[in-house]
Amino acid sequence: MKAFLNRRYHFSASHRLHAESLTDEQNRNTFGKCNNPFGHGHNYIATVRLSGPVDARTGMVANLADLDRFATDNLLGRYHLVNLNTLPEFEQVVPTTENLAIEVHRIFGGFTDAFLESVDVEETPNNSFTYVTPSI
Amino acid sequence: MKAFLNRRYHFSASHRLHAESLTDEQNRNTFGKCNNPFGHGHNYIATVRLSGPVDARTGMVANLADLDRFATDNLLGRYHLVNLNTLPEFEQVVPTTENLAIEVHRIFGGFTDAFLESVDVEETPNNSFTYVTPSI
Amino acid sequence: MKAFLNRRYHFSASHRLHAESLTDEQNRNTFGKCNNPFGHGHNYIATVRLSGPVDARTGMVANLADLDRFATDNLLGRYHLVNLNTLPEFEQVVPTTENLAIEVHRIFGGFTDAFLESVDVEETPNNSFTYVTPSI
Amino acid sequence: MKAFLNRRYHFSASHRLHAESLTDEQNRNTFGKCNNPFGHGHNYIATVRLSGPVDARTGMVANLADLDRFATDNLLGRYHLVNLNTLPEFEQVVPTTENLAIEVHRIFGGFTDAFLESVDVEETPNNSFTYVTPSI
Amino acid sequence: MKAFLNRRYHFSASHRLHAESLTDEQNRNTFGKCNNPFGHGHNYIATVRLSGPVDARTGMVANLADLDRFATDNLLGRYHLVNLNTLPEFEQVVPTTENLAIEVHRIFGGFTDAFLESVDVEETPNNSFTYVTPSI
Amino acid sequence: MKAFLNRRYHFSASHRLHAESLTDEQNRNTFGKCNNPFGHGHNYIATVRLSGPVDARTGMVANLADLDRFATDNLLGRYHLVNLNTLPEFEQVVPTTENLAIEVHRIFGGFTDAFLESVDVEETPNNSFTYVTPSI
Repeated sequence: MKAFLNRRYHFSASHRLHAESLTDEQNRNTFGKCNNPFGHGHNYIATVRLSGPVDARTGMVANLADLDRFATDNLLGRYHLVNLNTLPEFEQVVPTTENLAIEVHRIFGGFTDAFLESVDVEETPNNSFTYVTPSI
Repeated sequence: MKAFLNRRYHFSASHRLHAESLTDEQNRNTFGKCNNPFGHGHNYIATVRLSGPVDARTGMVANLADLDRFATDNLLGRYHLVNLNTLPEFEQVVPTTENLAIEVHRIFGGFTDAFLESVDVEETPNNSFTYVTPSI
Repeated sequence: MKAFLNRRYHFSASHRLHAESLTDEQNRNTFGKCNNPFGHGHNYIATVRLSGPVDARTGMVANLADLDRFATDNLLGRYHLVNLNTLPEFEQVVPTTENLAIEVHRIFGGFTDAFLESVDVEETPNNSFTYVTPSI
Repeated sequence: MKAFLNRRYHFSASHRLHAESLTDEQNRNTFGKCNNPFGHGHNYIATVRLSGPVDARTGMVANLADLDRFATDNLLGRYHLVNLNTLPEFEQVVPTTENLAIEVHRIFGGFTDAFLESVDVEETPNNSFTYVTPSI
Repeated sequence: MKAFLNRRYHFSASHRLHAESLTDEQNRNTFGKCNNPFGHGHNYIATVRLSGPVDARTGMVANLADLDRFATDNLLGRYHLVNLNTLPEFEQVVPTTENLAIEVHRIFGGFTDAFLESVDVEETPNNSFTYVTPSI
Repeated sequence: MKAFLNRRYHFSASHRLHAESLTDEQNRNTFGKCNNPFGHGHNYIATVRLSGPVDARTGMVANLADLDRFATDNLLGRYHLVNLNTLPEFEQVVPTTENLAIEVHRIFGGFTDAFLESVDVEETPNNSFTYVTPSI
């Protein structure tokens, strides 16, 4: 019996949307107020979706305690209460929530107790972005 | 890198569930109190799901400002603060939330900056209806 | 030991905001799209706040089963899935959520197992109206 | 036109996570505080996802009144306000939310007015488990 | 400048509503299914409301890090993932959420960095109970 | 008949908690990771609570369209998508949410169609701060 496990993690961070490859005017036209030099921020919610067989003895897809420990070390320790633009992964890449979802997906690729199906990152209660593990 | 963008829009409208092709008794049996001649209403939430490659320069699937402008003109201007039964698309079609989801999907088919994956319309916090773009 | 009991009830109804004592133009200026002749609707949430001593034997301010029965008969049976404008209490009174909160407060005044502190009616997730029992 | 219908049901229950096939120490290591002999509990939310053609006359995938009646009799009557460990289906099976989702899916397999796509059971606002109908 | 600080803590526990001073029949009549011998459970949310002057240098009513440490030690360590009926404070007292709110209020009376205004405990998204610090 | 009107406004901003009057070590000890030089951010929700008589003709405490226009111009135009530390009101004052609530209260003091009872600012779903209009 295969099941899906969905787990949400909360972190607060700031970002500024600005692309080096665009002119100042293009940046303002593309990103609007999100391009202001001092940035702004969000309460992000990352939802990690894993799948796998339900272990017949434990009744679990993966142990949430292990997943939470992994998330504390690798997700929250990295993204909670920081400015995303100061991180190496967003030096060349605009820290939109699309790109943030891809990075969070890359992080949870390191959790190998179950198959990583997808990562969704909610930027505000009204918008979110999802990155699905590509099928080979 | 392909990602999904999910965006929610809120509108308040009223409807009466009544099918011309059914007898009065069949209407009452099928729709219960929702068949009362004076209607009732809901705070609807439409969630639009788009997909596409993440633009390497802007980090976006589509520009939310453009999508919001489209939604204001074509969704909210049409459905917010109205009685659904008075609209031409619901003259011959019962304005259930199933049919409303199909109409909202048709509307966002006109937004061509990304691929329209699906539309979900929440009628109350406890029920919603989803229409997925058919694969050809 | 006195405590407060807060209980939420959900109902869906429609209304049209229109005052007989105003001209058509005044109505449109005051109520905007909410004045359209066919109405619109909401998922309302009424929160009833009661207070009283915590019964030493049962540990309760009031029995929720009794309160729910009262609410089903007197609140939901009256307001769920109806058009508020068709009810006698809104014949002379505009069915704004302010006035609806006052009516819901009047209804729960009939529940006498605890003191009625206030009633709040949420019209959308972003606005609500509260009516507090006046002190004598 | 095929659509999806999503409906949420709420129930409160308790459980203890303990596997007969594990030693006491293995149980404590696997389940942590959830293994305490007296149990703990949750407000569960089951989301049932059905699909089918939208009936041309009624505009419905399935009648919610029928689905609700089925859920009251078969889901809420069985799981609301109980200790899951006392039920026969969890005599040999640990009542994790993975296994609970599988049981709820089995129950709604008995509702035959539409195709059962999946069942999701939310254990807390931060984690849920989904069981999808296997394709043959 | 005096302000209010509101902080929410989440815990999951089980309880059985049963009063020693009532007969079995009275217990069933009073508590219904909540009286079943094996109990059931909830995801509780305790909201603590503190007040005090806003410190001119730090801009804080109280340091949330200190409050969280206090809550982890004294609230969550005691009530998360337990059966409330097994605790000494609920040996003679029915663990209704009214009585639980009074106990949580007693606990936070030990946090002396700000004035404890009230404690609210949510039992389900639709009901909660509040205990307000009595004025002397 | 006096009633209360509660209205919520959403904005996203960033801040850094740092007091000029404290040493670097005191700042780190007081504010923890929130003191990092590059800041972080939140989705804030300001709830404005007004009161007044319900106008007998319009059924309103105040016209929401007027209040929203005021909020757009004076609250959202000022705080949405900015870094709070760059604003003059937070040059000498640490932009904690306590101080932000006091500023938002000062802003809505300029809306004179009803009495301003209080302002609450939610920093995350788990904490908020309230500033109540002082009684004279």
